[in-house]
Amino acid sequence: MHSLPEPILELTDTLCRLPGIGPRSAERLALSLALNQDGFDERLIKALQRVRETIQLCRNCGAITDKEHQPCKICTDERRETGLICVVEKSTDTLNLSKAAGFNGRFHVLGGKLSPLNGVEPEDLNILALENRISKESINEIILALSSDVEGEATSHYLAQHFTSQGVKVSRIASGLPVGGGIEYADELTLSRALSGRLEMKITN
Amino acid sequence: MHSLPEPILELTDTLCRLPGIGPRSAERLALSLALNQDGFDERLIKALQRVRETIQLCRNCGAITDKEHQPCKICTDERRETGLICVVEKSTDTLNLSKAAGFNGRFHVLGGKLSPLNGVEPEDLNILALENRISKESINEIILALSSDVEGEATSHYLAQHFTSQGVKVSRIASGLPVGGGIEYADELTLSRALSGRLEMKITN
Repeated sequence: MHSLPEPILELTDTLCRLPGIGPRSAERLALSLALNQDGFDERLIKALQRVRETIQLCRNCGAITDKEHQPCKICTDERRETGLICVVEKSTDTLNLSKAAGFNGRFHVLGGKLSPLNGVEPEDLNILALENRISKESINEIILALSSDVEGEATSHYLAQHFTSQGVKVSRIASGLPVGGGIEYADELTLSRALSGRLEMKITN
Repeated sequence: MHSLPEPILELTDTLCRLPGIGPRSAERLALSLALNQDGFDERLIKALQRVRETIQLCRNCGAITDKEHQPCKICTDERRETGLICVVEKSTDTLNLSKAAGFNGRFHVLGGKLSPLNGVEPEDLNILALENRISKESINEIILALSSDVEGEATSHYLAQHFTSQGVKVSRIASGLPVGGGIEYADELTLSRALSGRLEMKITN
């Protein structure tokens, strides 16, 4: 058998590290890039370089922004509710939450979750900046939107304890049945959370 | 809702054109590239540039090679059988075929298949170069390894007619049941080809 030229193997190896790209897809992508006819690879290089030069994290909340919007558009949007911050783990989480209806406050990216086993302690997270924002932006309520795994839960509890003692209202997003999901597919823990978090249906005649 | 910075949207749009990458995966890849911590994007740009600068098609057979191996390693490999050429559509086809055991000849990439509806005529394919190779490399047999769709079949028939009239033996790879495939999953046409292409089992006691 003959093997591919080394630059293609190197590109395959590099593409392999992207999320969701396995060795077979990486090879197909690398070959497609190597054999492109119409300068596609050049366009990709330019797009990558542009992202590299312009994309930054917002210096206020940690969300994704570019050089020209620092602080980011959400932080500087005056139509947004003041006094309300939604705390998330990763900067990409702000995208999905801002697409969801019903939240009109600002965000704060923690940059991870507490994980003593992996050596992630409170001082490794972006908590000090959150404290500063709470006093500076006169925040009344923090909504915790962390993942509902063990580490996410631990982080939520830590933050709740930390900030309620400072007189800030702390809430967390609800756990429950996904919209469109049937009872038969839900696990017991989710059902138990959905039950304990039940909301009264107020029907006005 | 707030949208992503424009350079990320542009990168998403560019990545979307790669084979097997849909809008959702493209966005995930673009975000991962934009947020990389350890210079991964730079590594990818370098790998792409290197592919761009070094990868070429073999000037003899049309397979993928690099600047330093022109003609390619297969064309210049003296241990390979002379007189035998396997004709394929795309340069990537040579990779899979050279991994398969049982073929030790050289390749020739047509660069497509006949498709009158799309305006692909014999003169648009790499057939003249194949003719030159047949006389220059004193080829006895051409194996056609084209896809078994309508256009591939038409191309095979055209080439068979063209080259048998010049006294060259032309064969084609077998159609039949994939190895590991069951009868119940095969379509009728494949089964009919598998039947007509049956091989006698010679058992010596």
